Order: sequence, then C-alpha cells, then structure tokens
Amino acid sequence: VAPPNRSADPSGSLVRQTAETARLTAFSDGVLAVAITLLVLDLKVPRVGAGRLAHTLLEQWPSYAAYVTSFLVIGIMWINHHSIFRVVARVDRQLMFLNLLLLMVIVTIPFSTSLVAEYLLHSGINGKIAMAVYSAVTFVVGLIFGALWGYALAHPYLLEPTVDVDAARRTWPRFAAGTAIYAALIVVSLLNVLVALALHLAVAVYYAFERLTVSPQAPEAAS
Amino acid sequence: VAPPNRSADPSGSLVRQTAETARLTAFSDGVLAVAITLLVLDLKVPRVGAGRLAHTLLEQWPSYAAYVTSFLVIGIMWINHHSIFRVVARVDRQLMFLNLLLLMVIVTIPFSTSLVAEYLLHSGINGKIAMAVYSAVTFVVGLIFGALWGYALAHPYLLEPTVDVDAARRTWPRFAAGTAIYAALIVVSLLNVLVALALHLAVAVYYAFERLTVSPQAPEAAS
Amino acid sequence: VAPPNRSADPSGSLVRQTAETARLTAFSDGVLAVAITLLVLDLKVPRVGAGRLAHTLLEQWPSYAAYVTSFLVIGIMWINHHSIFRVVARVDRQLMFLNLLLLMVIVTIPFSTSLVAEYLLHSGINGKIAMAVYSAVTFVVGLIFGALWGYALAHPYLLEPTVDVDAARRTWPRFAAGTAIYAALIVVSLLNVLVALALHLAVAVYYAFERLTVSPQAPEAAS
Amino acid sequence: VAPPNRSADPSGSLVRQTAETARLTAFSDGVLAVAITLLVLDLKVPRVGAGRLAHTLLEQWPSYAAYVTSFLVIGIMWINHHSIFRVVARVDRQLMFLNLLLLMVIVTIPFSTSLVAEYLLHSGINGKIAMAVYSAVTFVVGLIFGALWGYALAHPYLLEPTVDVDAARRTWPRFAAGTAIYAALIVVSLLNVLVALALHLAVAVYYAFERLTVSPQAPEAAS
Repeated sequence: VAPPNRSADPSGSLVRQTAETARLTAFSDGVLAVAITLLVLDLKVPRVGAGRLAHTLLEQWPSYAAYVTSFLVIGIMWINHHSIFRVVARVDRQLMFLNLLLLMVIVTIPFSTSLVAEYLLHSGINGKIAMAVYSAVTFVVGLIFGALWGYALAHPYLLEPTVDVDAARRTWPRFAAGTAIYAALIVVSLLNVLVALALHLAVAVYYAFERLTVSPQAPEAAS
Repeated sequence: VAPPNRSADPSGSLVRQTAETARLTAFSDGVLAVAITLLVLDLKVPRVGAGRLAHTLLEQWPSYAAYVTSFLVIGIMWINHHSIFRVVARVDRQLMFLNLLLLMVIVTIPFSTSLVAEYLLHSGINGKIAMAVYSAVTFVVGLIFGALWGYALAHPYLLEPTVDVDAARRTWPRFAAGTAIYAALIVVSLLNVLVALALHLAVAVYYAFERLTVSPQAPEAAS
Repeated sequence: VAPPNRSADPSGSLVRQTAETARLTAFSDGVLAVAITLLVLDLKVPRVGAGRLAHTLLEQWPSYAAYVTSFLVIGIMWINHHSIFRVVARVDRQLMFLNLLLLMVIVTIPFSTSLVAEYLLHSGINGKIAMAVYSAVTFVVGLIFGALWGYALAHPYLLEPTVDVDAARRTWPRFAAGTAIYAALIVVSLLNVLVALALHLAVAVYYAFERLTVSPQAPEAAS
Repeated sequence: VAPPNRSADPSGSLVRQTAETARLTAFSDGVLAVAITLLVLDLKVPRVGAGRLAHTLLEQWPSYAAYVTSFLVIGIMWINHHSIFRVVARVDRQLMFLNLLLLMVIVTIPFSTSLVAEYLLHSGINGKIAMAVYSAVTFVVGLIFGALWGYALAHPYLLEPTVDVDAARRTWPRFAAGTAIYAALIVVSLLNVLVALALHLAVAVYYAFERLTVSPQAPEAAS
C-alpha cells in the first residue's frame, strides 16, 4: 500500500520507515519520562526546629499543587504525542525538527513549575508573572503540537495508509481550540493565580479522557 | 479470540491494542528507572576537616538505610507493575489515567526518602511525621495499585484472552491485604520510627519473592 | 548475505548481531535523552523582591540562549548517531568503546552549557574561556563521530549488507568538514562570545535538515 | 527445545519467558543510562573573579579524572550486564532480586565519584578513605555480578538452550578473578590514592576489550 504514497513525496527528503518512527517515539518517551520525573526535585525537604515539621510540610502546599498539575500536564502531553505518532508511519527532517522543538519546550516545564511553586503565594505581580510564564509555556507547546499535527496532515504520505485523511483533518480545529484555551489561561494568570492553576489541572484531567486525534483502526470514530 | 471480548466494551472508549500497552509500559519503565536512580541524589558528600571523613560517612547511616529501603520499595513496585501489565492486553483512558496517578505518587518517593534520611534520628515528633509521610506514600501507591488491578479485573476485555478471569479475581483480596500492611505502617511510624523503616525493608524483600498476580500462561498457579 | 561478510572479520572479535546493535542504540538513546533533559537544571528560579520577577527573568536570557542552543546541539547529535547506526548492523568491541567515549563527551554538555550561561555576559577573558570550552567539547564530539564512522567504513562487515560502501565512504570528508567548523568555532569563541553562540545555533539548525550519512535503502542518495 | 529444560525447574518459581527478560534488561538499561548521565552533576561551574576561570577549571582536574573513570566503569558494567543477559533466556524471582541488588549498588557510583572528586587531593586519611569507599563499591558490584552469573550457571534452565553450559561455567573463575582485582584496589586506595584511581581507569579500559562470558552462538569461543 505504501508505494503510491511514497511517490507523492515532493521534497525527496523522506528518510525513514516505520522502524524509524519507533526510534523517534522511543527517544521522545525517554525525554518525557525524565522531564516528568525531574518534577520531584521541586519538592524540597524543609529544615525546621523541633515539632515544626508537620506544619511546615503543610505550608508547602503550593509545591504539591504545582507538582500534581505539572505531572498531569506532561502526562497528557505524552498521551497526545502518543496519539499523533500512532498514525504517523514515516518521519521526514521537518517533522523531526518540529518534534525536537516540542520536546525543547516541554522539558522546561520543571522550571516553570518551580517558578510557580516559589511565587504562587506572593502577593503583587510576581505570582502573576510566574503563573503567566507557566501558561505561556503550555501555550507554546500547544502551538507546536498544532504545527506538527498540521504538517503531518498536509503531507499524508507520512501517515499510516489505513488513516482516513479527511477525517483526520477534521480533528485539527479541535487541536487549535485546545491551544486557544492555553492562550486564555495566560490572561487568567494575570487576573487570578490560583484560579489559573486550578484551570490547568482541570484542563489536564479533561484531556486525559478526551481524545484529540484519530485512531489508525477507525479514523471516523474521532470525527 | 479478541472479537467477542471487544464487543463487551460498554463505553466504546477502548482505544489501544497490545502494541499500545507496550508503549505504556515502556514509558512507565522509564519513569520508574529515573525515579529509582534519583534516590542517589539523597546521598550527600560531607565537607569535613582532616581525618573526619570515615566517621562522618558512618554517621550518615540513616541516608544509606533510607536509600536501600526505597530502592527495594520502588524495585518491587516495578515488579508489581510489570506483573499486572503482563496480563493486560489493552488499555483504555481510565486505565491510562490510573497508571498516570500511580506514577505520580511513586515519583515522590525520592522526596519522602530524603525526608526520612534528614529526620530519622531526630527525637520528638519530627522523625515520626517524616516516617508517617513515607508510609502514607506507600499506602497511597497500594491503594492506586488496587484500583488499577481492580479496574482491569472488572473489565476483562482489557485482559489477555488466555487469562482465567475468575482465578485472577481471587488474587485481588491479597492485593488489598498488602495495602492494609502499609496502613498499619503509618501507625507504626508514629510509635517507633526505626521499627517502621525496618518493616518497610522487610515487606519489600518479602514481596520480591512473593507473587501477587496471575501469569498469562498458568492463571490458576497464583490462586 | 551475511556469511561472506563475517568471514572477512580479521580480528575475530565480532561479537554481536543486529539485535545487539538495537540494545546499543537503546542504551545510547537513554543516555542522550537524560543528558538533553538535564539541561533544564541550568534554568534557575531567581529569588527576588516584590515586583522584580519579570525583569530578573528577562535578565537571565543567557541561560535561555544556552539552553536552546544546547538542546538543538544534542538533538542533532542524536539524529547523527541515529543516522550512523541505521547502517551499522554489527558492533565489535572497538565500536562499542568508541560509542562509550562519544557518550562520555556528549554527557558533559549540560556542564559546558551551564558554564556559558554563567559567564556569557562577563567582560574579559572568562566569557571567552567558557565559550571556548563549549566549542572544544563539540569539536571533540565531532572528532569521535568521525573516528566511529571511519572505523565502521573501514570494516564493512559491520555495515548492513545493502549499504553501498563506496558511496558511504564518500560521505566521510563531509563529516570531517563538520568537525573543522567546530575547530573554527573555538577560535571564534576567543574573539566574540555572542557570535560564537549564535553560530553554534545556526550550525545545529543547518544540520537538522542536512543529512551526513547514507541510507540503507538508497546509499547513492547522499553521495 | 525448551520443554526438557523447564521440567528441570525444581522450585516451580519460573515465571517469565524471553519477552520478560527483554523488559528486565530494558529497565536495567534505563537505570544504568540515568546513573551514568548523573555523573555530569559532579562537574561544578566555579564562581570566580575576572580572569580566573581558565586556572580554576584546570584546578578542578580531579573532578574530570573521576568523571572519566566512573563513566568507563559504569559503561563496562553495562557491557558486562549485557553479556550475561544475552545468554539468559528466563528470569526467576531470585535472579530478579540479584539484579535489583546489582543496580542498587551501581547507582551509588555517582555518589562515590563525587566523594573522590572532593577529597582526591586532600592529604592525610580523608583522600584514602574516599578512594577506598570508591573501590569497595566496585568490589561489591563484582561480588553481586559473580553471584548473579553463578546463580544462572547453577540453574541452566534459565539459559538459552544453545548455550554450552560447561563452557559457560569455565568462565566463572575469570569473573571471580575480576572481583579479586577490585578487592586489591581497596588496599591500593589506602596506600596511594592517585595510583588507585589510575588503576581503576586501566581496568575499565582493559575490560572494554576483554570478554568475560560466552556468546549464545559460539559458547566455546570464550573458554
């Protein structure tokens, strides 16, 4: 089934087969697994006097809230990455570069998480800036996911031959809508920090159960 | 053998095949491998004056005790995870979310380990709080493992077709019993910190040799 | 097709098959995935007074510039590693040792990145030394890549039988040319630190789209 | 070919097939890849005044020497692990526990490396203690490797059916000899720290080219 698709490759830069896609996803999985686990480094052991440990641990709740939110946020990004590459059979240099950009931004999430944990309870503009940086990172991730998925849809010879390309293309607006949510969360971050963090958590849980792409077996199921 | 099982999927949310289970376990393995290795960051190089190194290194024994215990605790969680996903052939969104929650709690173990290493020898309530937090984390891991295994057992179309579902379901009470041990260790932590740590080590070694689930080849062997 | 090649093994040290190459690349992928993700540890959360966070975060731009550059640099090294091992079917002890040396130098990149982020804006010789160390590390990586690829080309029984060895050998001078660029960047580092960093970024982006080795399917495509 | 071997399983605890060995080695590879990469955290960026960076970086040579040595030491342990599990087809609980102990000790090497880097140039007993701890860790790794390989040899139903068990058993004394070298290095550490570190490096390079186990294709080649 592949030959007619391959002949449609206009740039001649198609360099990989399905086995190559497997190594790309394995590398991406490794990066995402390390990034999600590095979140634990934001949980700090407090040094306190006698009898103060329980109280101080409870006072650190912004760290735990940021940890839980970011763990689910990166987890959902992994599921999303996974969903896209289930229907991508081949990878060209452009797709590989977009994937590298995607990982580059996701890997900064332990940093923006730490920023939120440090400044969440600060009054004034510092907390809002920290939360807006956090939201902006997720927004950029959304943009790159949209570009990557859009690039694959625009070059159907990269997709599994069993994919219904028209049905798959109808999923793209929902991708863009997800990115718009993250844009809105930048604004919310500047208005109310705690509401913005809670919304990030809610969006992550929502996307854990809501599928954005097509399945290779039944493309129309997601339309 | 799969079709009759698949038609039993009431929610229609069944999205993956065995190959998908493989990527879920590969990601989980990556997260667990990073988490278990980050435990070494709790071993600190002391800065001491001339001739004091050997003494100071020996004084740091709570760090080593916490390291050894947590390495085996996470190692046994990996074996346990492994045992469950050997008989799970398909993954739906609910199972994927439970798995993400499971990893989220396990990944905090380097933090609770560091807490125990820091406060193990503190007299008064701080050491007990640290140890109780450690026990509570393992208890929550046990709860989520029980929920995940229970969910899979309640939805047998997710299991390998060769699994004897009735035999597999008879293993669930033993899972719950394991979780009860961790609940008891929270209480022990508040009574005697060193006994609680020793019991955690003993439980980990015990479970290293004791199987909790069924094998796909011979389901009745574990009943 | 393999037997005639195997009989050409002069040293008798040929110990692995394609499955072994797979485990070597999986281990290398793991190391590279951890190294690229550890770059995030160079992004530090500043501790600032009220209203100063946005300003301080912007002042940290050398950290972000170093992060982006090194993420792409290591990413391109991964792609490069990947390209070589797609045409390497067998691994002997010499190749395994060269691969270990390669990883040993690549893994230091988070250190040289941190050095550049710290000293980029320092006037005087410190910034130039930091940038020269960074360039020297990439130069040594280039040297080892050249040695590894040259070793494989000199021992064609290690290559996939479908590879056109003569065409593959014609790619080696381009490898050497890439290494010469990194040598030149050591000199540029001592002249102008910011230009050197920008050139590193440009070279990484260039190599993201430019292939250096042959493909096993169409060896002549890269000549 | 497997059935006669399997019937020789005296304990009835044989729980895994070759696919299970694959997941064990994948997890072990992940742990070793993280541990070897964490060595970079021992390379510290110095904070120095104008014009002092080159000098201070050169003064840090013990960190680089410890880094290079430990990278090769862990790399050779990975190759060694690899060599053993190429001929192990099945894993029982005892072997899985020995493997977990092995990883537990190897993962501490970034700590003992940091200890050596910190105290290498200290006169008096501190440097010797640091180096002796380093040697003791490698010695314990050797002991556990010997136990693991010995356990597999004593239970040949765990091995690949193509392995010549008698030839494989003749490799065990060479394993034990390797461990004796590490025992001797503990003594050398207490006599001369720099000689001990240089010998660790030399032993690692030697073992990179010297094979300790048998190959599944040609078991007699290693006898």
